[in-house]
Amino acid sequence: MSKKLFDRIAIIGLGLIGTSIARAARANGVVREIAGTARSEKTRLRVRELAILDDVVETPAQAVEGAGLVIVCVPVGASGAIAQEIGPHLAPGTIVTDVGSVKNSVLRDMEPHIPDGCFLVPGHPIAGTEQSGPDAGFAELFTNRWCILTPGAKANADAVAKLTSFWQALGSEVDIMDAEHHDLVLAITSHIPHLIAYNIVGTVADLESDTRLEVIKYSASGFRDFTRIAASDPAMWRDVFLANKDAVLEMLGRFSEDLSGLQRAIRRGDGAALEEMFTRTREIRRNVIEAGQETAEPDFGRARATSPDPD
Amino acid sequence: MSKKLFDRIAIIGLGLIGTSIARAARANGVVREIAGTARSEKTRLRVRELAILDDVVETPAQAVEGAGLVIVCVPVGASGAIAQEIGPHLAPGTIVTDVGSVKNSVLRDMEPHIPDGCFLVPGHPIAGTEQSGPDAGFAELFTNRWCILTPGAKANADAVAKLTSFWQALGSEVDIMDAEHHDLVLAITSHIPHLIAYNIVGTVADLESDTRLEVIKYSASGFRDFTRIAASDPAMWRDVFLANKDAVLEMLGRFSEDLSGLQRAIRRGDGAALEEMFTRTREIRRNVIEAGQETAEPDFGRARATSPDPD
Repeated sequence: MSKKLFDRIAIIGLGLIGTSIARAARANGVVREIAGTARSEKTRLRVRELAILDDVVETPAQAVEGAGLVIVCVPVGASGAIAQEIGPHLAPGTIVTDVGSVKNSVLRDMEPHIPDGCFLVPGHPIAGTEQSGPDAGFAELFTNRWCILTPGAKANADAVAKLTSFWQALGSEVDIMDAEHHDLVLAITSHIPHLIAYNIVGTVADLESDTRLEVIKYSASGFRDFTRIAASDPAMWRDVFLANKDAVLEMLGRFSEDLSGLQRAIRRGDGAALEEMFTRTREIRRNVIEAGQETAEPDFGRARATSPDPD
Repeated sequence: MSKKLFDRIAIIGLGLIGTSIARAARANGVVREIAGTARSEKTRLRVRELAILDDVVETPAQAVEGAGLVIVCVPVGASGAIAQEIGPHLAPGTIVTDVGSVKNSVLRDMEPHIPDGCFLVPGHPIAGTEQSGPDAGFAELFTNRWCILTPGAKANADAVAKLTSFWQALGSEVDIMDAEHHDLVLAITSHIPHLIAYNIVGTVADLESDTRLEVIKYSASGFRDFTRIAASDPAMWRDVFLANKDAVLEMLGRFSEDLSGLQRAIRRGDGAALEEMFTRTREIRRNVIEAGQETAEPDFGRARATSPDPD
């Protein structure tokens, strides 16, 4: 592409996602100039060292100066305050977006601070790893991944189209949906899986130390799979559960009901019920693999590549 | 090693684990001859085609003829019946072992059928993948993995030592412990993780079809991790939960209590409690990686190797 999609973009928050966007935008020649800032001085210094951005500045207000696209990459609980801070400094026509895992609260918290003539198109790239911080980012993070946009009252078709082109230029496929629907689907796809992974790893963390060491030693039998997502960024996930409380509690209710059913089948020795259920769940993995969302290699492909193994 | 550990071994059950043992024993030159059988004719034919064993026979009784080591690789609920079937055909001095994920019930079910002069040393290689059947096996499955032996009343030191050497020759490290302790540790390390993975995948399987398709589409945000172990062999896992009922229900009780605590923190909006817990769990993954039981690569190393990505 000879013409850049944006002349200058600003990234507020320079962790795994923020710096991956910067790396991907640069690698794909999508914009002329990338400015950005992070709350912590340590992070700003590190990003300067890594030389990922063109311009690392001290405040969000400075970062958005002259930017046609502003991408807020902070825990969702902070997005309202960031919007308030940058609102007065946005040039007319600027598109503001974010990358948070909850979208209804982001719309509610950011919209009031977006001045008329600017556009808000919240977004959620379904991409990441369990690692965090600027050193964890990489340019290929969004390749072949979905990015969901949830435009509200402060969006228009042009802004949505332009942001769609931006994510496509980073390698993603884009879906557009209602913020409330996003939050319900992601509650079961992402938030509940993280919650129960955090929970079982927490249960193990609370065991007496001898047993805990044995669980770690024999973790290839299943447990270690859960430690991955339970190693995700604590502040980000705290905010997700607070911001998507209703959908999370609703889905957690279904999960707990189903778990009670399994518990009862075990207590009663109902092998037929267990086997029937374990056969149905096998099908879902096939669907995930067929949808191109997972490797078909056994054990995530780690079985032969690395020293440890599973189950 | 110039002298073979065993002249002839018999493998009863030719799935992922049984055929991996055969492949590993042959690859490492551990035994002279490998006999085996499977209940299903289809499996026997396939293993003959694959030419992994020296002698694929019709019945367990035929398989154990002349074997110095018999390895029972069937769902744990079937191990008692197999012991009863082979008992009268075992030559004096034969060592019998198994590979089941529960050990107390295996001891209880098999011991009565082991004739005097033979030895029973139940075992559990902490290795496997979510796949099953003879085509899923491979020789390196046990490399650098733990194998736990739980000798009971029908074991002696020589038999334990010889079985230890066998597993070491296949690349494993060997631990010896009480069957009851094994079942408690594995309940939290392996059985509860499988149960809650089966449960959440089951919850998704029960969603209305539109939502289910969306969950699959966006599964890289967390859910897909759980689909792996929920794709494990249904009959094997049915038997695990029936055979280790008490320990599973005890650990499930702790898991559910902890989950109620998290649920309450979310309902009350107690961000500090959530963040504190999510920070503690991060440490556990570091421990698992430091114990050599997991790759340190982000996203199990699949992030850059395969088309899909996470979170």
